[in-house]
Amino acid sequence: MSQDQSSVSRRNFLTGTGAALAGTAAGLVGHSLFFRPSSAGAVKQGFEWPWPYTELDPEKVRKKGHAGYYDGDCAEGALYALVSELQENVGAPYTYLPVQIMGFGGGGVAGWCTLCGALNGACAAISLTSKDFYKLSSELVAWYCETPFPSHTSNELAKNGEFLVNKSNKVFKQTVSNSPLCHVSVCKWCKENECGSGCPDRSERCARMVGDVVAKTAEILNAYHFGEFRAQCSESDLAHSCQACHSKESPYEMGGWSRGKMDCTSCHIKGHASLVDPHHPGK
Amino acid sequence: MSQDQSSVSRRNFLTGTGAALAGTAAGLVGHSLFFRPSSAGAVKQGFEWPWPYTELDPEKVRKKGHAGYYDGDCAEGALYALVSELQENVGAPYTYLPVQIMGFGGGGVAGWCTLCGALNGACAAISLTSKDFYKLSSELVAWYCETPFPSHTSNELAKNGEFLVNKSNKVFKQTVSNSPLCHVSVCKWCKENECGSGCPDRSERCARMVGDVVAKTAEILNAYHFGEFRAQCSESDLAHSCQACHSKESPYEMGGWSRGKMDCTSCHIKGHASLVDPHHPGK
Repeated sequence: MSQDQSSVSRRNFLTGTGAALAGTAAGLVGHSLFFRPSSAGAVKQGFEWPWPYTELDPEKVRKKGHAGYYDGDCAEGALYALVSELQENVGAPYTYLPVQIMGFGGGGVAGWCTLCGALNGACAAISLTSKDFYKLSSELVAWYCETPFPSHTSNELAKNGEFLVNKSNKVFKQTVSNSPLCHVSVCKWCKENECGSGCPDRSERCARMVGDVVAKTAEILNAYHFGEFRAQCSESDLAHSCQACHSKESPYEMGGWSRGKMDCTSCHIKGHASLVDPHHPGK
Repeated sequence: MSQDQSSVSRRNFLTGTGAALAGTAAGLVGHSLFFRPSSAGAVKQGFEWPWPYTELDPEKVRKKGHAGYYDGDCAEGALYALVSELQENVGAPYTYLPVQIMGFGGGGVAGWCTLCGALNGACAAISLTSKDFYKLSSELVAWYCETPFPSHTSNELAKNGEFLVNKSNKVFKQTVSNSPLCHVSVCKWCKENECGSGCPDRSERCARMVGDVVAKTAEILNAYHFGEFRAQCSESDLAHSCQACHSKESPYEMGGWSRGKMDCTSCHIKGHASLVDPHHPGK
């Protein structure tokens, strides 16, 4: 449940402000709100959410994520890596989930290069398995922004031909995106590696990165479910600096028409800020 | 399947380049690749993908999307609006899907304000129900970028107290985001309406927009499954202009280190482009 919705619990939704929906929601309880029997009085078919989680091997998941990219692209490949392991370990309800549900996320949503597909698919697995999806997903995104991709581990696996699908044994130069956006992440890597974004090497880079993202996701989920999860990453100081005025917490007049956790300077430069207002501090 | 993967079909994945995965993939066939029995020889539990689709009423879906926002935020609310209707019309397999799988998408992924959550949730429903998720999702994103939100229809429903949840009867000024990013979409609307992004009016704007996005999604899916779907939207002329050099199709030296369909000028202004190279045409 997001910060936006903190004052509107599911319970209130059914009993209070959302009473107008009671007709359609009749018979549904608690977290099974969005499961309903196929006909009135039938046995409930759904499974309680969140779905059960078993400890995953990050290195096994990394290899499946890399391979999954070559079959289902970044987002579906990421969800596949995590869910197929849970299908194997748990069985149902995971056996009822087609990982193609995240197929659209390929190339940052059908090639639009918005949200990195690896994050999109991995966060879907987080949301299946934890009520704290907001906190855990935010941690994954923050980690992504600060991490050099592909990891040394993935570069070494490729170099040694130890992935499940071996397309290239080149060791790629690493880049830090400082942004969760596919466009930024891909462009920075391509420029550093002098590689066209349509080249097989760029695809292989994204495959390794999917592996890295799902391995980290497995680590986060393992820590959350079986250890002690603590957020390691924070938004950048610079973002905090801008957000002192430009955030949901600020009134409109102070710059509170903005919101978000991305590092502002990934898109806004001084030249931009000065266009907003000649007296803007960033001028 | 994305453009990236056009040469790597699922079939090839199992029989050719992905042969190294055959061990883990054994027993899986065709589009059920990512479903597997809980134990060797057990009856397959999954359902064939894509899942069956029945014609949806866009106006019913619009109201459910608006209400869904107030229970599950934008992304989960969007998926709820579409899937709950299919749960009602079809039953299984939709009754096995917890729409919380898209919970992470709230606020453009846990408040990071990347991809608009309404698009994220709606595209998940598209991907569940069609192998052509790439084409249909791209159309939805393109439409989103060009569309004034909230729609006149949603403004009127709110004004007349005809939503399922009635929070405000104000008629909001419309804005066109020209971007699929939450941050841009929200900021533009907030500035036009002189509204802080943390205010209830901004939440209500996003609720109406979720309704508008899922209503459009129902129209697209209805046309695809029961009519004649034709893409109506195209990327902007300006984006095409930049993409003549900056695309996956271009070699690195021509600017092919870039990729994406977003309108370049939503982030890049002339001042930006000139920083790349003093001789850049955009200077």
